[in-house]
Amino acid sequence: MNEFDLISRYFKDSQNSQQNASLAGVLLDKGDDCAMLVPTSGKAQVITTDTLVAGVHFLADMPPYQLAYRALATNLSDLAAMGAKPKWFSLALTLTDANTQANWLSEFSAGLFNLADQHGIYLTGGDTTSGPLSITITAIGEVEAELALKRSGAQIGDSVYVSGELGDAAAALDYLLEKRPYQQTCQQDHLLSRFNYPTPQIALGQALTSLANSALDISDGLVADLGHICRASNVNAQLYVEQLPLSDAILTEFPLVDARAKALSGGDDYQLCFTVPEINIPAVKQLAKRLDIKLTEVGVITAPGGILKPEQTTTAKTEQVVQCLLQGKTFELKQTGYQHFSS
Amino acid sequence: MNEFDLISRYFKDSQNSQQNASLAGVLLDKGDDCAMLVPTSGKAQVITTDTLVAGVHFLADMPPYQLAYRALATNLSDLAAMGAKPKWFSLALTLTDANTQANWLSEFSAGLFNLADQHGIYLTGGDTTSGPLSITITAIGEVEAELALKRSGAQIGDSVYVSGELGDAAAALDYLLEKRPYQQTCQQDHLLSRFNYPTPQIALGQALTSLANSALDISDGLVADLGHICRASNVNAQLYVEQLPLSDAILTEFPLVDARAKALSGGDDYQLCFTVPEINIPAVKQLAKRLDIKLTEVGVITAPGGILKPEQTTTAKTEQVVQCLLQGKTFELKQTGYQHFSS
Repeated sequence: MNEFDLISRYFKDSQNSQQNASLAGVLLDKGDDCAMLVPTSGKAQVITTDTLVAGVHFLADMPPYQLAYRALATNLSDLAAMGAKPKWFSLALTLTDANTQANWLSEFSAGLFNLADQHGIYLTGGDTTSGPLSITITAIGEVEAELALKRSGAQIGDSVYVSGELGDAAAALDYLLEKRPYQQTCQQDHLLSRFNYPTPQIALGQALTSLANSALDISDGLVADLGHICRASNVNAQLYVEQLPLSDAILTEFPLVDARAKALSGGDDYQLCFTVPEINIPAVKQLAKRLDIKLTEVGVITAPGGILKPEQTTTAKTEQVVQCLLQGKTFELKQTGYQHFSS
Repeated sequence: MNEFDLISRYFKDSQNSQQNASLAGVLLDKGDDCAMLVPTSGKAQVITTDTLVAGVHFLADMPPYQLAYRALATNLSDLAAMGAKPKWFSLALTLTDANTQANWLSEFSAGLFNLADQHGIYLTGGDTTSGPLSITITAIGEVEAELALKRSGAQIGDSVYVSGELGDAAAALDYLLEKRPYQQTCQQDHLLSRFNYPTPQIALGQALTSLANSALDISDGLVADLGHICRASNVNAQLYVEQLPLSDAILTEFPLVDARAKALSGGDDYQLCFTVPEINIPAVKQLAKRLDIKLTEVGVITAPGGILKPEQTTTAKTEQVVQCLLQGKTFELKQTGYQHFSS
């Protein structure tokens, strides 16, 4: 099978039917030099790109259904963090010979379109190349420019909220990396499913455009990501460790102190972290009920500069815009998020 | 240096200044979850994605300046083939440790922005990951939807045109792959420069929107790519081998028969192939003068089905929508273009 047949079989004639193409504003797709899209008049576009590399971002033997689902979910999560409606995505797949087998491709395609169809996002095209397995997705969403959720809008006094439960994906990694024995318990399977099938908070993100001052998705860990909001907004933040939302699963399988550490510094949860002015807190509580999503107040935005000691280095400074408190006392964290090429 | 510093140093504070950002309709770029763009009202968008993998699409020791230039050029060429104006691009870079050295990154960045700034296309963001060297670029351009150049518009009787000279990039590969000795002649350097620095035909593509019935860029070789136009348009084509535009360089370094074979089936030239109704031929000749570009009539679009013999297989059929003629007689080609995973 040559490249063109391969793309055609698994991605062109997919669950994303041509009827969807016209609904998605796609005039011309796979098969020409470019796809052609019609932006919605008056909306801004948000665009995000993520690459997942085998052996770096996922285990090379990760089932292709999960891999595709997770790759798209992490991109949709970036759109959610801006309050955007997902519209289009492109897929660049670099595949080894083993990945070009029919089984692998059909499972990959099924995982991809399962999530794509849940959110009405349309695959416009991409590229398929031969090489070490990696996946790059570029996703485009639409939002009113004035309403887009930015990292830079946090105000002193805002409450810091998170969606869902934190730490589950980091806990799952302990089983995947064989740091802890996997015994197929329901609780362990719940943790693994949170890693394999993260839920991009699309509906929540769109609803928050009128309620939150700032937002992002938690991919590097709550402390590291809230740090991004703080630096972009020129504020500091305090987190109340006892208020972190932890799942029954993580509390059953891990000591409380480890669960809290994973909630604070484990990445990969793809929940939203957002800041809310006091006046909008009742509306946020209403929203949680309406969407049936857990939304938890976990901290507060504070004035900048209060935490630093003069002798601290730039690196220490990076970590210290966010202060973790447990019953009013500083809770020290050693690790504040995953970075590539970190020294 | 961590990932965030790395992106910031080489790509954020680049030749693409913030002044350019506002000109490019970029409201928010590198540093938030997504970039935010403002599409031009009434225009459609064209979008293309290409991945280049070290050892597959380029030699792993290709100088980073050339690599970046070429990676962006191939994407811009797809926009040119649609008649679009380039607007935005994102960059997903997977780098080995060697590629994260300051020299490598600064040269890569210089090559990238040299070409980006020539065409006023703005880097909105992307992703940097650790792994085997590869580059994925997603480029977005704008065009009036009704004017976009498609592959499917060729009409029987159209003249087939190509821009520039063909075969030079394929000839250069003979030196890069050490099939022929490289002796640093001017002619050889000219051939290498056509491979390393392909020229995306942006101005030509935009001008052709009102003159050509169909177009694409030649990346797989003229016969293979004209075959794409033929299949999309349900027509056949004849190519006149004696009319192929060949550079002085290739004619000096290669026997005529080899030069012609490279012009017909060598990829990587990134010239445009387009079909023109008779009535527009004078305007195309004018355009060539105005843009100072060589535009050469190399064939004609013919009725479908005339070439096939009943016993031919699907594979043969793929090759046979385009017939090559030399002084009126069939000119046989063994290879009609590069494909990944070809069996």
